Amino acid sequence: MGMVTEAMHGVGGSEPGAFGKRIMELAERLAQWSESLDGLTCTYLSPAHRSVAAEIRNWMREAGLITEVDEVANVIGRYAAAGPAARTLIMASHYDTVRNAGKYDGRLGILTALVLVEHLKRIGRKLPFHLDVIAFSEEEGVRFSSSFLGSRPVAGRFDGKLLERRDADGHTLAAVMRDAGLDPAKIPALARRREELMGYLEVHIEQGPVLLEEGLPVGIVSAIAGSVRSTVTITGTAGHAGTVPMARRHDAAAAELVLYLEKRCAQAPTLVGTVGQLAVPNGAINIIPGRCELTLDIRAGDDATRDAAVSDVRAEIGRIAARRGVSFKSTEVQRTAAVRCSPRLQSLLADAVARAGVRPRHLPSGAGHDAMMFDGLTDVAMLFVRCGNGGVSHSPREIITAEDADMAARVMLDAVLRLAETS
Amino acid sequence: MGMVTEAMHGVGGSEPGAFGKRIMELAERLAQWSESLDGLTCTYLSPAHRSVAAEIRNWMREAGLITEVDEVANVIGRYAAAGPAARTLIMASHYDTVRNAGKYDGRLGILTALVLVEHLKRIGRKLPFHLDVIAFSEEEGVRFSSSFLGSRPVAGRFDGKLLERRDADGHTLAAVMRDAGLDPAKIPALARRREELMGYLEVHIEQGPVLLEEGLPVGIVSAIAGSVRSTVTITGTAGHAGTVPMARRHDAAAAELVLYLEKRCAQAPTLVGTVGQLAVPNGAINIIPGRCELTLDIRAGDDATRDAAVSDVRAEIGRIAARRGVSFKSTEVQRTAAVRCSPRLQSLLADAVARAGVRPRHLPSGAGHDAMMFDGLTDVAMLFVRCGNGGVSHSPREIITAEDADMAARVMLDAVLRLAETS
Repeated sequence: MGMVTEAMHGVGGSEPGAFGKRIMELAERLAQWSESLDGLTCTYLSPAHRSVAAEIRNWMREAGLITEVDEVANVIGRYAAAGPAARTLIMASHYDTVRNAGKYDGRLGILTALVLVEHLKRIGRKLPFHLDVIAFSEEEGVRFSSSFLGSRPVAGRFDGKLLERRDADGHTLAAVMRDAGLDPAKIPALARRREELMGYLEVHIEQGPVLLEEGLPVGIVSAIAGSVRSTVTITGTAGHAGTVPMARRHDAAAAELVLYLEKRCAQAPTLVGTVGQLAVPNGAINIIPGRCELTLDIRAGDDATRDAAVSDVRAEIGRIAARRGVSFKSTEVQRTAAVRCSPRLQSLLADAVARAGVRPRHLPSGAGHDAMMFDGLTDVAMLFVRCGNGGVSHSPREIITAEDADMAARVMLDAVLRLAETS
Repeated sequence: MGMVTEAMHGVGGSEPGAFGKRIMELAERLAQWSESLDGLTCTYLSPAHRSVAAEIRNWMREAGLITEVDEVANVIGRYAAAGPAARTLIMASHYDTVRNAGKYDGRLGILTALVLVEHLKRIGRKLPFHLDVIAFSEEEGVRFSSSFLGSRPVAGRFDGKLLERRDADGHTLAAVMRDAGLDPAKIPALARRREELMGYLEVHIEQGPVLLEEGLPVGIVSAIAGSVRSTVTITGTAGHAGTVPMARRHDAAAAELVLYLEKRCAQAPTLVGTVGQLAVPNGAINIIPGRCELTLDIRAGDDATRDAAVSDVRAEIGRIAARRGVSFKSTEVQRTAAVRCSPRLQSLLADAVARAGVRPRHLPSGAGHDAMMFDGLTDVAMLFVRCGNGGVSHSPREIITAEDADMAARVMLDAVLRLAETS
């Protein structure tokens, strides 16, 4: 009981609702930096992205943290332990966004950690471990079609080949980094060592409707779904739209594949499949489409369920192609294994949630998160925060309440203090 | 019998195969002007398009024609009758192309007419009517999403509102014309008067497989299908690809509509339906598509068959939208009535085809042609030439043989001479 009391005391040192109020204010301030005039867009190393990094670093400095911007533009603020030999707890998420994004995806996790250490500093509470707040520079994969550019190096998972990737303007990642004053040669040195880490915690919006429907402000992530992503090119026979009888046409037709994916992915509860991009290159209103390019994203709470669907979809592609006399080319561009969150850290979070008077709800994450990169390197856990508007995200309609943000910060503070007492 | 003999004599004045050989050579020379490095693209008033016009005008001059480039960049060459009060027979087609086009779509009709008047000039054969060879500047509708920009003014069907249309760079048609030294204010004066016209003849590649399958070099067009073109925008709910259960999603899904169109348009022999453009604006591999934009092109040999299909497709759009909880917006952007070719001119062509030793085959055109613009103004007729490669067009794989081109020129010469004798 003594430990619980002390933990509650720590949380109680801040005015009720103050965490949530500050998180919402800071999220608004970050959202003012955008590379587009309409809506929020903040992709890797754009001017808006650099400004957001500078803002976050300033706030970390004001909170008394030891700050640095590393060689991939992650912003790191250390709330240092008394002894330099202490291990490190990472609390992190990302500050880049998709195009026309919401204000909380990624940033909520950074800001929750920030207000937490601001509080610790204010009440003069030292921890027996370093608490590193990391604002990862890239997670969404927008600019270079590769996700986790910020967290990969820190987790020691950065493949040097990524440096040759090009953005839509043809610039390589390496060149874009050098232009921003970053040195790609120093990336390997960013990798954290297993023995120095205590664990990895991430707060993130749920990006789905579960907590909203169940009336819960927060939930504990049980596992993070892995995705298999592919690009598919369908090649048929172009021709004049008016002159080839329907029975003799070979349209580069994607429709059957799209409908099959939808039907197949409705067959298991956590399974989802998406065609997020689809285009007819050089198409014209009066030309039979000769080529169609599309993307497939298939996910599930466990890899077996997902892989069975991927396999069925690929087989169906072959059947459709044979029946229609067209050719398909499918290329797997990304495969991420599902990650199980640490039972120990899930319990830590669940206990803190229960102490806050909320029923602990464990739920899987359909979205990928930076936390995945740390799987196998250290224990990982995540706290989800309820979304409004039916759970929409990756959209300007993405919203959360200040009350829920406050709850998340208090739960995390409680958990961190509990960890301090038990570690 | 005397008239037949004289007509055959006129044709015989040229070396066998010479027409076809020259048509193929000139088509190659025109195909060297392209606005793209890979493949043939020649859209309205591009530098390549201006060069093609200059080439054609030179050839017309060398053939002794009275030439002009009119205010919409049509190239006109008149083989004048002895008396200035004579009426005019137009032989025409277009010199613009789609993107990544073939060499014969449009240009074959211009070159067939050109070699025909070169021959008349060579043998010193005068006609009792003016023969105007017109190379229309625009038929495909690529640059301004509006077809027949060349033939509309000549047929008196140019709507001044078209001048405000913009190309992909945002330039209006009026501005682009002025930059090219053309005066939009003079367009109305290009309209031909009903009483001055004798008829309109156009040679064109079939752009389909019928003549190829039946082993016929040429065929006589019975009617030109009219098309109804629409753009459709589907608006669903964007969201994260991993976090929304399949049953709760509202993808901006076009697939059911595409498959319905395909099925419905297979229900009548001359009916065809095409989705030539389809895109997910701002789509990303990991985002549920929130919007999809596509085009519909529906045609048939008669308007009743076509309109029944258009009506069914629109009703189905409503059903799909209601079932999926998404909204559709359908906008009709073009409606062209089917055109019946003149029975008198069809007979004229059929007789010439028969005299050339070929079975006269009448067939409908699924494609729209400049000839349509002259419907109601004067009698129109068309001669189709067999395509190779399964009938493909609007593609670099579009081919014809020199023998078939030669046959088309000889048939047209014979028909024109017959017309000269009977008019």
